[in-house]
Amino acid sequence: LSKQKSKTTAEARKDRVEKVLHDLGQQVYHDLDSSKFPSFTFASRSVSNIVYDKKLQQFILGSSNVKRSAGNIKHIRPFTQLLWLAYFSRKLVEEKKTSTLRDVYYSAQAFDVEFQDQAESDELITDLEVLLGGAREEFNVYPEERSAIFGNLTIEYTVPGYEGKKLDLSAHPDGMMIGPAMTTAEFADTDAEIVLAIEKGGLFTRFIEEKVHEKYKAILINTAGQPPRATRYLLRRLHTEMKFPIGILCDADPWGAHIAMVIKSGSANAAHLRDLTTPAGVWLGVWASDIQKYKLPSDPLTEIDIKRVYELKADPRYKEKLWHDELDTFLKNKRKSEQEAFSRYGLSYIVEKYLPEKLELLKSN
Amino acid sequence: LSKQKSKTTAEARKDRVEKVLHDLGQQVYHDLDSSKFPSFTFASRSVSNIVYDKKLQQFILGSSNVKRSAGNIKHIRPFTQLLWLAYFSRKLVEEKKTSTLRDVYYSAQAFDVEFQDQAESDELITDLEVLLGGAREEFNVYPEERSAIFGNLTIEYTVPGYEGKKLDLSAHPDGMMIGPAMTTAEFADTDAEIVLAIEKGGLFTRFIEEKVHEKYKAILINTAGQPPRATRYLLRRLHTEMKFPIGILCDADPWGAHIAMVIKSGSANAAHLRDLTTPAGVWLGVWASDIQKYKLPSDPLTEIDIKRVYELKADPRYKEKLWHDELDTFLKNKRKSEQEAFSRYGLSYIVEKYLPEKLELLKSN
Repeated sequence: LSKQKSKTTAEARKDRVEKVLHDLGQQVYHDLDSSKFPSFTFASRSVSNIVYDKKLQQFILGSSNVKRSAGNIKHIRPFTQLLWLAYFSRKLVEEKKTSTLRDVYYSAQAFDVEFQDQAESDELITDLEVLLGGAREEFNVYPEERSAIFGNLTIEYTVPGYEGKKLDLSAHPDGMMIGPAMTTAEFADTDAEIVLAIEKGGLFTRFIEEKVHEKYKAILINTAGQPPRATRYLLRRLHTEMKFPIGILCDADPWGAHIAMVIKSGSANAAHLRDLTTPAGVWLGVWASDIQKYKLPSDPLTEIDIKRVYELKADPRYKEKLWHDELDTFLKNKRKSEQEAFSRYGLSYIVEKYLPEKLELLKSN
Repeated sequence: LSKQKSKTTAEARKDRVEKVLHDLGQQVYHDLDSSKFPSFTFASRSVSNIVYDKKLQQFILGSSNVKRSAGNIKHIRPFTQLLWLAYFSRKLVEEKKTSTLRDVYYSAQAFDVEFQDQAESDELITDLEVLLGGAREEFNVYPEERSAIFGNLTIEYTVPGYEGKKLDLSAHPDGMMIGPAMTTAEFADTDAEIVLAIEKGGLFTRFIEEKVHEKYKAILINTAGQPPRATRYLLRRLHTEMKFPIGILCDADPWGAHIAMVIKSGSANAAHLRDLTTPAGVWLGVWASDIQKYKLPSDPLTEIDIKRVYELKADPRYKEKLWHDELDTFLKNKRKSEQEAFSRYGLSYIVEKYLPEKLELLKSN
C-alpha cells in the first residue's frame, strides 16, 4: 500500500506564517500612517479564559482579550518585545534558520530589547503564538527536547540543502531524531499501516529488535516521556495526511495516562493552538486494570501519584468511561507499573502476547 | 580522504565478552567439581580504592578486592544475583538482544531472583562489569538516555537484520540516535577531519544549519548534557580508529567543564572500566575566560556552582594549567555563560567567528 500526497504541507505552513507576519507589520505601519498608536489585541491566556471544547476535543481560549498598545506607558515594554519577536521570527522564516527558545532570549540582547530572564521571553513567545494563531515551531523556534522515529516510511525533506532528498526511516535501527527537518518533511511512500507512540526509549529499541515494524506494519515513535510539540504535530500529520491509526503505549501510572491524553487532546498550556492534537489516537495501555489482568510487578502509588489521579479526575477529558474507570482502578488498587514490567515474562512477551491483544483496539476504533 | 579499516571492532567485542562469560561459568563448574564453594573475587569499588592513574589519565580501581562466596551465608544473595546476571547477559549476547537496566530488574523476577529495587540490580550490574572487565553495553545492557550524531561519515551495521548495510550519517539533518546499532557499527568511509562534541541539541542543530560539517569537515555529536557511556565509547572509537581530533564545546560553567573532562578521562563511577575515555580530546570552550574575552551575556554563579568549582579544584585532573586557571577565573569573576549566549552577536557568529579561533587549538594539539 503506497500512499502519495501533493507536496504542500511545509510550503503551505511557511506561506501562511509569512503572510500573518507580514500582515502584522502592515497593521503597525497602517496605525502609524493614520496617526494612531499601534497596538496588538489577542485572546487572554489567563486560567479563567481556558475552556474545554467538546467538539474540538481540546482546551481552547475563550472570548476575553488583552491589548498591548504603544499608547499606554505600561504596555510599551511588552508591545516592543512582541514587535521585536515578530521581526525576529520573520527573519528566521525568511532565512530558513531555526532557533531555540534560549537563542531567542540571547538574540534580543543584540537589539537592546530587554527580557528580564528567559521565562519572560518564553512568555512573550507564547503571546506571539496567540497573536499569530500558530505554534512557535511554525516560525522556527524549537525547544531542546527531541524524540525519535523509526519505520517503513520514506520522507522527502523541505529544509534548505535537503529539498527533494528522500530518506527511508527504517535505515537507522536506533531511530532518527524528530527535529525541524523531520517535522517539515513530506511523507513520500510507506507500506506501514499503523503508528505506535511509545513513552520510553528502551521499549522503542525493544520493538525495533523484535521487528514490530514488520510484524505489525507499524511506524514507531519514541516520545521520550511527554512528547515535545514537534512530535505531537508529527503524530497528527501521520493521522490526518496518511490516515494511520495512532496507538499510544505508556507506563501504568497517572503520568503515563496523561501522556496519552495530551497526544489525543493537547494541554491547557496550548489552548491557543490547533494542529497539535490527535483526538482519534487510542490509549492502548498500560492500563491500571492491566496490572491485575497481566499480573505485572507493581509498586505502590505515592502520595504525589494519588494527588495526580484526583487532578485528572477533575479534568473534563477524563469523564469518558474507559478513562474514568481506569482512574478509579488506580485509586482502588493503589498500584502502578511500568512498560518494562512485562520483562517479568521474558523480553519478547510484550510484543508476542500483550501487543496483539491491544492492537485489536486500533481496529475496532 | 577516505579511511578504511578491517571489520572487527563489534565482532571482537562480542567474542571477548562471550569468552569472559563462558570462562566465568567454567570457573563455577570447576569449583563445584572440586567440591569447593564457588566464589567470585573482584576489585573493590569503595571510594578508598579509587585512585587516579596519571599514565592512563583516568581514575582506576586500586588493589583491594572483595569476594562473594557461595560458602558464606552473607554472600549467598549477592553471589546468586551476580551469577544470574552473568547468565542473563550471556543470553542477551547470544540472542543479540539489547536490554535496559530497568528491563534487567524486571527480568530477574521471571527467575525468582530477588532484587529489592532497581538501585540494587544496577549496583550488581556494576559489580558484574568489574568482574568481567567490561562495560555493560558490551553485554547489551543500555541506559535510557540517547544522544545523536551527524556528519559525512558512512557506517556499516553489525546488528541483526542490518549486517553489512551502510548509512551515510549526513542523510538526516536532525541527527541519528546513538544507540546499540550506532555504537557497534563499523566506520566505512568519510571525508571528515575532526569531531565536535556539543553539549546541547540547539547548538547541534545550529551547526548543521550553518554547515559546520562542510565548512570545517566536522562530524557533530550532540552529547545531550553529560554524554551516556555509549556516546563516550563512540567518541573514543572515532579518535582511536579514525584518528580524528576530538573537540568539546560546552557551557561556560563548572558543569560544562566537567562534561569535557569526563569525555577526556571518565568518571570516578567508571574507574573499573577502560575504553570510555579520550585523553586526547580538547576542551575548546566555552571557557570562563571567554566570557570576558567575547563579552558574553552572563549570569552570576550560584552557591551550588561555586561549591562545584571547589570540588573540581580538588580533583587531580584539574591540576593542569589551563583547567586550573579557568576554575580560578570562575572563582574570580563569579559569572557563567551558556553556549547560546553567542546569539547575542547574531545566530551565525559562533560558527563564523568563535569556532575558527577555537579550532586552532585542535591543530596545535
